[in-house]
This record gives sequence, C-alpha cells and structure tokens, in this order.
Amino acid sequence: MSPTDPPNIDPDLRDIYAAGAGRSALLTDLYQLAMMEAYLEAGMTEGAVFEFFVRRLPKGRNFLIAAGLEQAVDFLQQLRFTEPELRWLRDHGGFGKPLVRYLEGLRFEGDVNAMPEGTAFFADEPILQVVAPLPVAQLVETRLINLLQFQTMVASKAARMVLAAPGKMLLDFGLRRAHSAEAGLLAARAGYIAGFTGTATVPAAALYGIPIFGTMAHSFIQAHEDENQAFVDFARARPQGVVLLLDTYDTEAAARSLVDLAPGLMAEGIELAGVRLDSGNLADHAFKVRRILDGGGLRAVRIFASGGLDEFQLQRFATQNAPIDGFGIGTQLTTSGDAPSLDCAYKLEEYAGKPKRKRSEGKATWPGRKQIFRRLGPDGRLAGDVLALADEDADGERLLQPVLRGGALVTPLPSCAEARANAAGNLAALPGRLRALEPAAGVEVTVSDRIKALAAQI
Amino acid sequence: MSPTDPPNIDPDLRDIYAAGAGRSALLTDLYQLAMMEAYLEAGMTEGAVFEFFVRRLPKGRNFLIAAGLEQAVDFLQQLRFTEPELRWLRDHGGFGKPLVRYLEGLRFEGDVNAMPEGTAFFADEPILQVVAPLPVAQLVETRLINLLQFQTMVASKAARMVLAAPGKMLLDFGLRRAHSAEAGLLAARAGYIAGFTGTATVPAAALYGIPIFGTMAHSFIQAHEDENQAFVDFARARPQGVVLLLDTYDTEAAARSLVDLAPGLMAEGIELAGVRLDSGNLADHAFKVRRILDGGGLRAVRIFASGGLDEFQLQRFATQNAPIDGFGIGTQLTTSGDAPSLDCAYKLEEYAGKPKRKRSEGKATWPGRKQIFRRLGPDGRLAGDVLALADEDADGERLLQPVLRGGALVTPLPSCAEARANAAGNLAALPGRLRALEPAAGVEVTVSDRIKALAAQI
Repeated sequence: MSPTDPPNIDPDLRDIYAAGAGRSALLTDLYQLAMMEAYLEAGMTEGAVFEFFVRRLPKGRNFLIAAGLEQAVDFLQQLRFTEPELRWLRDHGGFGKPLVRYLEGLRFEGDVNAMPEGTAFFADEPILQVVAPLPVAQLVETRLINLLQFQTMVASKAARMVLAAPGKMLLDFGLRRAHSAEAGLLAARAGYIAGFTGTATVPAAALYGIPIFGTMAHSFIQAHEDENQAFVDFARARPQGVVLLLDTYDTEAAARSLVDLAPGLMAEGIELAGVRLDSGNLADHAFKVRRILDGGGLRAVRIFASGGLDEFQLQRFATQNAPIDGFGIGTQLTTSGDAPSLDCAYKLEEYAGKPKRKRSEGKATWPGRKQIFRRLGPDGRLAGDVLALADEDADGERLLQPVLRGGALVTPLPSCAEARANAAGNLAALPGRLRALEPAAGVEVTVSDRIKALAAQI
Repeated sequence: MSPTDPPNIDPDLRDIYAAGAGRSALLTDLYQLAMMEAYLEAGMTEGAVFEFFVRRLPKGRNFLIAAGLEQAVDFLQQLRFTEPELRWLRDHGGFGKPLVRYLEGLRFEGDVNAMPEGTAFFADEPILQVVAPLPVAQLVETRLINLLQFQTMVASKAARMVLAAPGKMLLDFGLRRAHSAEAGLLAARAGYIAGFTGTATVPAAALYGIPIFGTMAHSFIQAHEDENQAFVDFARARPQGVVLLLDTYDTEAAARSLVDLAPGLMAEGIELAGVRLDSGNLADHAFKVRRILDGGGLRAVRIFASGGLDEFQLQRFATQNAPIDGFGIGTQLTTSGDAPSLDCAYKLEEYAGKPKRKRSEGKATWPGRKQIFRRLGPDGRLAGDVLALADEDADGERLLQPVLRGGALVTPLPSCAEARANAAGNLAALPGRLRALEPAAGVEVTVSDRIKALAAQI
C-alpha cells in the first residue's frame, strides 16, 4: 500500500486525458444556445454577473469545501467551438448564421472571482462569480455547475471522513463505482484536496500528482490453487510495500499463514507493509489479526480495511479503538452516497450594471454582485461571515479572490497540494461543533443591510 | 420543446468526444497492474472467465435494466497503451520491463457474452461475461464496472419514471448535476434507452442520435426589464416549437399575459408549443394554467413541468390527473438519487478451465461460467429465470449472447433506438407487480442443481 514514488505530473498525459467531450464548448443544454440566439437578436450582449452557490446544505451537513476551480478555469480558458461543432450546429442544430458566426470567434475574455479550492463555506455564499457578456456567461452555465458541484460535493464528503478518522491513512478506491471516468479522476482529486492520503486510480498521479496506492484483489487469490502461493507470488513480483488481502477464505487463518511465511519472505528482501481486510466485522477481525501479527513478531505490519465504509463507520472504529491504520474508501466517497447532489445554482445577479434577483416560489435568491467577509475569533476559529455587495466594506478576509481578468489568470492557480493545505487550515479553523458528524448550529452568516434593501427594492 | 431535427449522429464529433481519459488503458486501479505483474512473473496467463453482476437490487427496486454494453465493447476494442503511458509506467509507476513489454502489444482479443442493452434482469444474473487471458481480463475490470454500473443504474431509475408516467414526454435535464461530462452524456443515453423521449444535452444528439429539446431559463426573463418582452424576444429568435417559462415572477399572471400576446405572435408565424412550470405546487399551477390557456383559446399549448422530480412525484401527478404533458427530469435521473450506486461485482468464475468462487463472509458468489434462461408465461409475461452453467440446457431464451469473439464483433451492436425498443419490450413483459414503484415479490430466479453442486464442492 506504499505509494508509487514519485507520482509526477506528466504534461503529455495531462493533455491527452483532458481531451474529449469534457472540454467541448457544445457540452451544454440546448436552451443555452437558444437563449444566446435570442440575446444576439435582441442586442442583449452587455456585461452580466452570474454566481454559483449552494442554496441549502445537504441534510445533516455542517459545512462544504469548495473544489473544482482548476477545471472550471481550464474549461473557460479552452472554450472554443471547433469546425465540426459549428457545422453540426448549422446543419443539424437548426441554428442561424448570426449565432454560428458569433460562436466562431468566441473566447472567454471575462473575469472570474472565486474562493480558493479547499475553502469551507456555507449556504448562499457564492464560491464562483463570472463577469462576461450575457450570452457567454449564459453558455458556460451548464459545464461550470457540472464541474463545481461534483468536486465540491466529493471534497465535502471526504472532509467528514478525514475528521472522523484523525491520524489514519485514507485512500480513494472509488473509480469503479464513480459515475464515469472523469468522475473517478475528479473524485480522486477532490478527496485528496480534502485530506485523503491518496488514491488507487492510476492516472490521478500523472494528472494531479496524487500519490497512488494498491494492494491485491480476491481474484488474485482465487486464481491460485493455494492462498499461500498467491501471497508468495504477489510479494515476489512487487517486493516493496507489500500488502496482502486476508479475507478471501478465512481471515485469521490467513493471518496465521502470513506469520509462518514472513521469515522466508523477509529473508528474500521482501518488505511486508500491511494486510487488508475487506469483509465481515472489520473491527473484530482487526483486533484478532493484530494479536496474531504482533504474536508473530509482525508489529510493523499495518492493517488496512475496506468494504462499503462511510464516515460514520470510521467514527465507530475510532470509538472502538480498532487497530486499523488505514482505510480504502470507494463508493461512499466517489458518489457522496448520502448526498449525491447539491442543491446549487448559477444565477444572474446583475445585467448591464443593474442588480437582478430570482423570485420564484421557494427559490428566491439574494441580488447583486457579492463578496464574503470572514472573521476569525481570538481562538483562530471561524467566528462569522458577512455576505455583502462587492463594493461594500466589512471586517474580515475577503473569500472571493480575483482569478481571471479578461480571460487571463491573475496568478497561477494553487496546486492540488496547496489546495489540500488550504483545506486542512480551513477544517482546523471550524468550530468544534461543525467538525462533528452530527448536525450542529451553523456559523452565523449575516446578510448585509444593503443586500436586504436591494432585495426589497427589486 | 420540439426536438431539433434531425439529430444525426456525427462520426467526426463522435471520435473527438470519445477521446480523453475514458479510453485510456491506464484508467484502472493500481492493483490491477500490480497483479498483472505478479501473474506474468508466475506464468499465470491462461484463460479466465469473469462475470459482471449485481449482488442485491437497491432497496425498493423490483428489477434492473442492462445498459452500457456499447461503451464497454468500445473500451475493449480500443484498448492499447500509448507510448506516453508506457513511459509513465516505467519511469514513475515503478513497473518492471516484463510488464511494460507485455502491455506494449496488448490488445483485447478475448470473447465477450452479454445481455443486449435494455434487457431486464435481477440479482446474481451476470449481464456481461469476459473470456480472456487472466492478466487482460483482470486489467479491464475497473473500467468495465465503471461503465456498466453507471448506465445500468441510470437506465433502471429511468425505467421507473417511464412506468410511472405512461404516455408523457420525459426529458433528461440532468447534465449540470451529473458527476462529470461523461456521466451527463451517458445518463442521457441510458435514460433514452429506458424510454425517455430525449435530452437537453446537446452532444447526445451527435453522439447517440438522441432527440434534443430545450426551453428557456429564468435568467433570460430576469435579464429583460419586462417578462412579456422576454417572451416576445425568445419566440422571435426561434419561432418553431416555442416553450416559455412561466414561473419567474407569478405563474398564472404570466399565463394570462401569454394569452394576450398569443394572437400577435401567431400572426408573425410563431408556433407556441408549450409552457414550462418550474417551482411551487406544480399540479396546482398546471390546473390553473391549463384553465387560463384553454380559456384563451390556447388548447394546443402543452404544459411541461420540472424541478427536482422523481418517479414518486410523477406517479402522484398521474393519480391527480394533473394536466401536465411532459416532464424535465434532472438530478434524480442522472445521479439515480435514491440509489447512486449498485452493489455490483466483476468476479473470477473460472481460471484455466477450473471453476472458481469467492467465499468471503457475506460476499460469496455462485461459481462457474454461466448462462441465464428466461421463460415467458402464456400471457407473454416473464415467468421465471434459470441461472445455469453455460454448458447446461434449459427451457427459455438464452439472455447472454455472443458479442465479441477473438476481440471482433460477432454482429454489429444494436443502435440506441434498437436498445430502446428492447427495453420497451422487456418492461411490457414484466409482471404487473414488478412494474409498480412499490417493492414486490420478485420473479423466481432458480439456480441450477449443477451450480449448487459446484458451489458445495469448491
């Protein structure tokens, strides 16, 4: 389970993997193009401000962690319609010449302000703000939501696991149950930002520089006539950081076999790093296996557990003091099992200098271009946020920071490792009650008087 | 909301969109490569049989619909390691020369048997069977599960919506909440196979030939000073099949405005096709809006509804006889909200001619290479399945059909439209109790005596 070393980012692979539908400007809802056509015809191409925010936190959640900005910025900076796409819109999409001509030269030359990835945030607080001509800001809605909601959702789920298992290794095993290739890769990234140790997903190393880890599957044991022979074959092929899977037949019997095999393996220079448990009562097996390993002189061999785990099970293991050193987490991380979507929106807040507001029943929003000011208490913990208009001043740190100006990066975006450090700082600054898995009274988010006055007025 | 016509598949776009990480042979768990290395070293390269199946249906579900085969086959047929990937494995992955050399020339030249997409199936029934040298069959596990579980999950969810809303238009609006670009595209495809009418996701037309539909967003109305002006601008820009969004400010007031505007618009040659409701009590608004439209002579204008809908809400609308003609369904379709993952597995069933079985606690599987025989009753409804060994004979239709032989297609795969017809037939053949949303006693799936004997023996 030791990481392959060094998991360097490979620019060639990064470019190859970024290709495909995910970067397509056509990856949008049909109505965005229909509205663009109407905006152009009506001459409505002045500047608009849209904001992405979460309306309500998922049930039982105390905070969210912003993630996905790097991919959102990449999408905006790469935005262009290719010739085959323009042809398709003309020949099959039923779109007229003025729109196709407008799309031909289209680039994102607007501004973006955003929370750095890894920042904790709450309901109604925008994490990304787009300032661009109305048709452009409208077009990019679909993919921006698609990118920001998923990674934010996964990072937020992962952060709960990190808080529930202090000091443990947490590894993403979720690619197979992720909702697609891209979901698996981005989940590995979002989990890492939130504090996971690494992932089993190979391309995440080349793409994001995330440490990758691997053990063995049951099929490896089953393909052998004999479990011991499987252990020996596996250890010899990759002698460093060997982690063996114990539960294919009888977990404790396999642990005892390992104790018998260990001296021979170590004499060959094989480094036995750990064992993995994947079924049954994991805590109970861990206690028994720990005793067997310790009794056999294998105190340095670590115990990993996997199999449908979530943050509540991690917390139970912690309460039981189960001797488990690390966890492989799959489905519950990559799908955010209890909350596989966020109640989020990308809303028009201003057009041609005038503040705007959605007033639909149950879906009304705060109007105007905003800023969030965050105050920390004397203990360094988060004391309260103020949701204000962008031109207001208030105490505290401004959470929305300039990212793009005229389509160009103001400063290079933080690396995944830097975003991870930011998340760690943000989690440490959460009041204790919000760090718990149980729902708690939130941090006070004050809406400024000017926003309220504006809402009353529109 | 009329579809753009014709939504032809575009081979150029299909190739462009298929590029990227999703087709990468490196898109796997690190342990697959580690096990391959060990298999090679131990000379274990004989033929293996793996099967993909669902262990248990999600809570409350009566059946599943198989989907994702086309993408699984594409992945296998395109499987190859590129030079940058091989270099990465060598330089950063810590893999030895024998593995890298083996991967260099690797192609999938094995066999695949599978259920046609759109087939209804139950727990323990394999929907895909891979026969290939052990290291190859092992390598492809991760992406095969990734592709098959997601589309099967979405098609199964969509089928419930189709059954709950007979005769209604169902449109996928889910790209923004899908877990990535690929998830959005594949969800559009899986929904269409299960019986959805179409999608809002533009590239789904060029990729799969799915009809695409679009209306307008609240931001379009908000960007205008006046709602009526927004209606007029939108209708003029795209005069065919115009669908206007009524709930930005006051739903019924907007419907009355539309009645006033309609004669003028129609005189301009504009075809008013429908209105969309997106907030509040949708059934209540639909009754009121229907009365207003009918009273104003707009009987042909259809009512569409959207906003967090799932199959239970669709069923309530049907019970209420709510005058809603079609539904836009987003999050609950693309994320399969109540069951965002399937308890599925890809398990070794045979190696070097010997049947294999996983015996881990609570995760034991039926051994051997299998076939499923399906019997229909005299009413044409599904009467029962037999899970047997592949070389057994039993009454009924064989559900696993040859797809690849030596890596080549036996016959061309069905189109999405053909898979959709298959799903419609399969849904029609389900016993009435299984077509209901409420959990019911399942169809009898009999495990053959030979499988049971084999399981007892291993």
